[in-house]
Amino acid sequence: MGVIFVSHGRAVDIILRGNEEQKRAYLPIMAKGHLGAIAMTEEKAGSDASAIGLMAKRTGDHFLFNGEKIFISNSGLADIYTILARTSEEKGPRSLSVFVVEDGTEGFSIKDLPEKGGLKVLPTGRLLFDDSPVPLKNLIGDEGKGLLLTLDVIDRGRIHIAGICCGLAYRVFREIYHYAHRRRQFDHPLTGSQDVSFQISEMFSRMNAARSLCFHALRQVGTPYYRVSSSQAKLFATRMVMDVAARAQILMGGRGYLKNSLINQLNGDARGMEYLEGTSNVQKMIIGRELFRMYHKEKNNLSND
Amino acid sequence: MGVIFVSHGRAVDIILRGNEEQKRAYLPIMAKGHLGAIAMTEEKAGSDASAIGLMAKRTGDHFLFNGEKIFISNSGLADIYTILARTSEEKGPRSLSVFVVEDGTEGFSIKDLPEKGGLKVLPTGRLLFDDSPVPLKNLIGDEGKGLLLTLDVIDRGRIHIAGICCGLAYRVFREIYHYAHRRRQFDHPLTGSQDVSFQISEMFSRMNAARSLCFHALRQVGTPYYRVSSSQAKLFATRMVMDVAARAQILMGGRGYLKNSLINQLNGDARGMEYLEGTSNVQKMIIGRELFRMYHKEKNNLSND
Amino acid sequence: MGVIFVSHGRAVDIILRGNEEQKRAYLPIMAKGHLGAIAMTEEKAGSDASAIGLMAKRTGDHFLFNGEKIFISNSGLADIYTILARTSEEKGPRSLSVFVVEDGTEGFSIKDLPEKGGLKVLPTGRLLFDDSPVPLKNLIGDEGKGLLLTLDVIDRGRIHIAGICCGLAYRVFREIYHYAHRRRQFDHPLTGSQDVSFQISEMFSRMNAARSLCFHALRQVGTPYYRVSSSQAKLFATRMVMDVAARAQILMGGRGYLKNSLINQLNGDARGMEYLEGTSNVQKMIIGRELFRMYHKEKNNLSND
Amino acid sequence: MGVIFVSHGRAVDIILRGNEEQKRAYLPIMAKGHLGAIAMTEEKAGSDASAIGLMAKRTGDHFLFNGEKIFISNSGLADIYTILARTSEEKGPRSLSVFVVEDGTEGFSIKDLPEKGGLKVLPTGRLLFDDSPVPLKNLIGDEGKGLLLTLDVIDRGRIHIAGICCGLAYRVFREIYHYAHRRRQFDHPLTGSQDVSFQISEMFSRMNAARSLCFHALRQVGTPYYRVSSSQAKLFATRMVMDVAARAQILMGGRGYLKNSLINQLNGDARGMEYLEGTSNVQKMIIGRELFRMYHKEKNNLSND
Ligand SMILES: Cc1cc2nc3c(=O)[nH]c(=O)nc-3n(C[C@H](O)[C@H](O)[C@H](O)COP(=O)(O)OP(=O)(O)OC[C@H]3O[C@@H](n4cnc5c(N)ncnc54)[C@H](O)[C@@H]3O)c2cc1C
Ligand SMILES: Cc1cc2nc3c(=O)[nH]c(=O)nc-3n(C[C@H](O)[C@H](O)[C@H](O)COP(=O)(O)OP(=O)(O)OC[C@H]3O[C@@H](n4cnc5c(N)ncnc54)[C@H](O)[C@@H]3O)c2cc1C
Ligand SMILES: Cc1cc2nc3c(=O)[nH]c(=O)nc-3n(C[C@H](O)[C@H](O)[C@H](O)COP(=O)(O)OP(=O)(O)OC[C@H]3O[C@@H](n4cnc5c(N)ncnc54)[C@H](O)[C@@H]3O)c2cc1C
Ligand SMILES: Cc1cc2nc3c(=O)[nH]c(=O)nc-3n(C[C@H](O)[C@H](O)[C@H](O)COP(=O)(O)OP(=O)(O)OC[C@H]3O[C@@H](n4cnc5c(N)ncnc54)[C@H](O)[C@@H]3O)c2cc1C
Repeated sequence: MGVIFVSHGRAVDIILRGNEEQKRAYLPIMAKGHLGAIAMTEEKAGSDASAIGLMAKRTGDHFLFNGEKIFISNSGLADIYTILARTSEEKGPRSLSVFVVEDGTEGFSIKDLPEKGGLKVLPTGRLLFDDSPVPLKNLIGDEGKGLLLTLDVIDRGRIHIAGICCGLAYRVFREIYHYAHRRRQFDHPLTGSQDVSFQISEMFSRMNAARSLCFHALRQVGTPYYRVSSSQAKLFATRMVMDVAARAQILMGGRGYLKNSLINQLNGDARGMEYLEGTSNVQKMIIGRELFRMYHKEKNNLSND
Repeated sequence: MGVIFVSHGRAVDIILRGNEEQKRAYLPIMAKGHLGAIAMTEEKAGSDASAIGLMAKRTGDHFLFNGEKIFISNSGLADIYTILARTSEEKGPRSLSVFVVEDGTEGFSIKDLPEKGGLKVLPTGRLLFDDSPVPLKNLIGDEGKGLLLTLDVIDRGRIHIAGICCGLAYRVFREIYHYAHRRRQFDHPLTGSQDVSFQISEMFSRMNAARSLCFHALRQVGTPYYRVSSSQAKLFATRMVMDVAARAQILMGGRGYLKNSLINQLNGDARGMEYLEGTSNVQKMIIGRELFRMYHKEKNNLSND
Repeated sequence: MGVIFVSHGRAVDIILRGNEEQKRAYLPIMAKGHLGAIAMTEEKAGSDASAIGLMAKRTGDHFLFNGEKIFISNSGLADIYTILARTSEEKGPRSLSVFVVEDGTEGFSIKDLPEKGGLKVLPTGRLLFDDSPVPLKNLIGDEGKGLLLTLDVIDRGRIHIAGICCGLAYRVFREIYHYAHRRRQFDHPLTGSQDVSFQISEMFSRMNAARSLCFHALRQVGTPYYRVSSSQAKLFATRMVMDVAARAQILMGGRGYLKNSLINQLNGDARGMEYLEGTSNVQKMIIGRELFRMYHKEKNNLSND
Repeated sequence: MGVIFVSHGRAVDIILRGNEEQKRAYLPIMAKGHLGAIAMTEEKAGSDASAIGLMAKRTGDHFLFNGEKIFISNSGLADIYTILARTSEEKGPRSLSVFVVEDGTEGFSIKDLPEKGGLKVLPTGRLLFDDSPVPLKNLIGDEGKGLLLTLDVIDRGRIHIAGICCGLAYRVFREIYHYAHRRRQFDHPLTGSQDVSFQISEMFSRMNAARSLCFHALRQVGTPYYRVSSSQAKLFATRMVMDVAARAQILMGGRGYLKNSLINQLNGDARGMEYLEGTSNVQKMIIGRELFRMYHKEKNNLSND
């Protein structure tokens, strides 16, 4: 499942922002297949990462970790966790820092979360820290700069989720497309009904629009427009895949409603896309913010390429 | 779960179209709590009931049943099955007849279908007939009039599904409404965000629109407009509940995606409404047909009250 | 055009909140056909009426009016204007008061606004006040209570706009319905195409949903749920009529795009519904506010009947 | 206005399918600025071009034209008309042929159509033929192959309309974007309201999705996927621009409803996009047909690049 590798890649990206020593310590292992994970979300910090409460208190040559992360992809599967934690009592975004924590660290344990409504192969669990000592050298980047660093990495990665949405939609489309040719009612295949044929045409168009938007974003890597482009690709592709999957399920009739039918499974997966790398509302916040920033910079030019 | 009683009620309605003897034989038992079921759907006959293939061949004082029904609500739970079967080799709607078949009839067995993506408490299974003898006296109404009789019963019943949709939506709405007050992000409850508050207002409006449409239909029982009114209520309420449930799930964040969370369960139930008593496309066919019939009758008057 | 009478009715409602003398002075004339108007909107005060700047400065036994109203329905047509004005320099809603101003008052003139994109028969103009003396006795209700009084009247009246939307939609529907039967392409009438027939079914359902919601609201006049019910009816009916009119225009083909075609005209009218008695966003604000108020009153009961 | 040049370009494309002599006769004049037009639509032949009735009867070295075209862009403005006409009494697509007809041809006159609800600068009129002699040498391509030839040209050109939609949307977006920053209500600019900001983000995303889909199509010129790609771009871009324009008009408040306001004008233009080079339903027919053709060719490969 693609999401596993996206989370892994995110962890790699974090470490790429570290110093030479850190890169040498972790990248080769990760390249060999030891998976990474990235952990921000907590009970009280979901869309608002600045509310993170996991404390990393400096004591001698360690940070002592206390607290809990939830909804962490690859938890259990991964060996290397990149973790956003609070390194200062003060509230606000500038008191967060990012660390590498290896599986097996003292006082660090992993618990499962209840089963999800999709993305079955992706383990999504809780990380518990109870006086876990994390060495100073595991701090990535500067203390207090963790949120910016992490968000920057996520902005970069968002496009991968958009890509997974496209792949998923394509899989759903294939399925319903073939089914609609084979399934006969009223003495003709479903494709013989105008509404079915029109729905298939619309699904196809939106699928290609999402895909084109992904390529568009990819062409902008490295430019100041990349952030808004990857957010809009994620926003559009997520809605597209949920819509395509929902329509397809209906077009399958009762068979598509069976729990283990491929369409029902893919539908569940599609709905999971919403939460990965920020919900749709979070994407809209980012796009809005970026557009308004551009507005004030260059009042006359809204073009994004 | 309401659907159990709707299916039961449908069987009662069928029997109410029977003769005195049939009513006396079954209604008292059913009133005491022996459940009924109504069976039309087959492998090759879903939206198009006229394609039914289950053969009921007359032999002496029996009809010999051979064939299979699928997706039958209450199967296993019910004692009394009302079954639409083919009583003539010729194709077409006028060769179908409706029968009462009791559980325990020779050669009649019930098999489960795989688990569904919702409506967990509703058993939905297969009915298998292998040279099952069904007594002549179990034929309801005239031979060859079964499809019309059954569709008439279903038209009447459709409004119940619309009502269940409203109830379900109300349950979802309560859940998300309370959650949105309790859940805080960015230092305020979700209800403090305009988008969330606007979505709640929209859900509420559509929910009430569906409910009003149900009452509208109920006021038309007995008039020639009842059929189109109950179809439009089912059409509108189904889409409404799917939309309300999908939005609510998203507004719950990651928690709403957990498989056993109430919202995820209700979402699954909501998606099941689509198939009961005819899909949305089938409702549109009915509405279109009725409107066109009215058009040709009274070219000047489209009003439906 | 219905809107003229709604605006007139609004003015009547305002005067009904006045004292005996005021009622005796104006209601008989208005009943005889002298039209009324209600004026809140100004250049800087649209959705936010509390920003009203038209000054009514008390001087002896008069209030001196200075300022301007815009987008006032019935301006020119009406003889009696009910006007929301600022009676205190302080900002905020408690410094507004409502007055009756008769056409012909010194320093009060009426100017046209440029033509609108619909609602051709409804004059919508500007009211200009230049040291206009309005007698003390023309103050309706208490000084400083004008906003609440006016909003209360508007809440009551909103349902009429919803009703007009339904009437308008019905007119559009009739038109397209007949056209779709007459117009032939591909050797059959448009109604013979499934997509067209399905669209007609959907329009019909939404139209009836809006109408049912209006009746629902009407049944709640006098209850604390009336405000939210009339807002949701207006919200739903406005979107419905815009959607029905837009689809109908498309289904008419190129003929529907001709400027003076009935469908194009009705489409323009439909779009005007958005602004009357508060935009859709304003309705959502009201519904949200009312629901949240109810939430805090009776945490367990969301039902609105 | 772009549409003028698109129609002109279409005529050029038709002539490019002609023989050397025809190209030499017309292309140089057209390059110098003499405009072209393309005429298919008639009273009874809109979406269904195969119903064309304009007769071109062969008599000696001429075809005698009798009949009428409607809704022809550039009529009056153009000097060179490419005209699809019936060259055989038999019904069906294989009896149509395409001709060049010069303005000034005997018996050929041009009448205006009533004003449209947008696209003011584009003349859209009627072409009347009354025993007009059109020389044999003006027949483009083979007799009876006119429909295929014309449709092929239109398929190619459709992408231009999609591009115009994007440009139009961009213009609307700029307008509303700046307005939303300037207009203040409730003590903050409209952009300070989450709903407004979210709507702007969504418009922006859909606008870019349409644009990306255009580029996608352009990259496929010359491949067998071009037809479906240009149709889907037209389908998607048309809906996008209508949606963006409708939302923008609402966000402008009452000002956007004034007939001569830029937003109202652009809104009217946007609605005109629907009819150019085939309605949205016609695009869905094309996409459906192409997909089904591909399905039967290569059952395993739906990819379109
Ligand atoms: C399958 C899965 C895998 C995940 N993997 C990871 C991972 O690897 N690492 C990690 O750190 N996290 C992970 N997460 C967590 C994910 O990032 C969060 O679920 C997501 O950020 C949303 O947070 P939340 O669930 O707390 O929702 P909330 O923040 O509580 O939001 C609830 C809803 O309200 C909306 N909302 C919130 N605030 C506002 C506002 N101000 N305005 C408008 N709308 C608002 C949201 O859009 C959402 O729809 C995963 C989640 C899932 C489901
Ligand atoms: C939970 C559940 C309970 C059920 N209970 C019962 C029961 O008690 N008794 C019983 O008899 N049946 C029951 N059914 C079966 C149900 O009635 C059928 O699933 C339903 O009628 C659709 O048939 P189908 O699944 O074969 O879909 P199909 O008929 O194959 O249709 C597939 C899709 O194509 C669409 N479609 C089909 N034909 C056309 C057309 N010409 N034009 C446009 N669109 C078209 C349909 O709308 C649908 O979306 C139940 C089903 C479910 C899921
Ligand atoms: C045909 C017609 C007749 C009218 N008749 C009358 C009349 O008789 N008497 C009278 O007093 N007025 C009348 N009006 C004026 C009408 O009430 C206003 O146009 C309306 O209230 C909107 O105000 P505005 O145009 O200033 O838009 P604005 O208030 O500037 O709003 C612009 C847009 O932004 C949205 N918006 C504004 N604030 C927010 C926010 N905080 N959050 C989210 N969205 C927001 C609005 O919904 C709207 O879509 C009429 C208008 C028209 C078009
Ligand atoms: C501004 C403008 C410029 C134009 N310029 C030109 C030009 O230069 N040259 C030219 O030849 N023509 C031109 N046209 C005409 C245009 O091509 C036609 O309007 C268009 O093809 C639709 O035809 P119609 O208006 O007859 O609609 P109809 O064909 O009558 O269709 C009416 C509606 O029904 C739908 N419909 C029709 N049949 C079906 C079906 N089987 N299934 C589902 N839906 C269906 C259509 O999508 C449409 O929404 C122009 C039109 C306009 C408005």
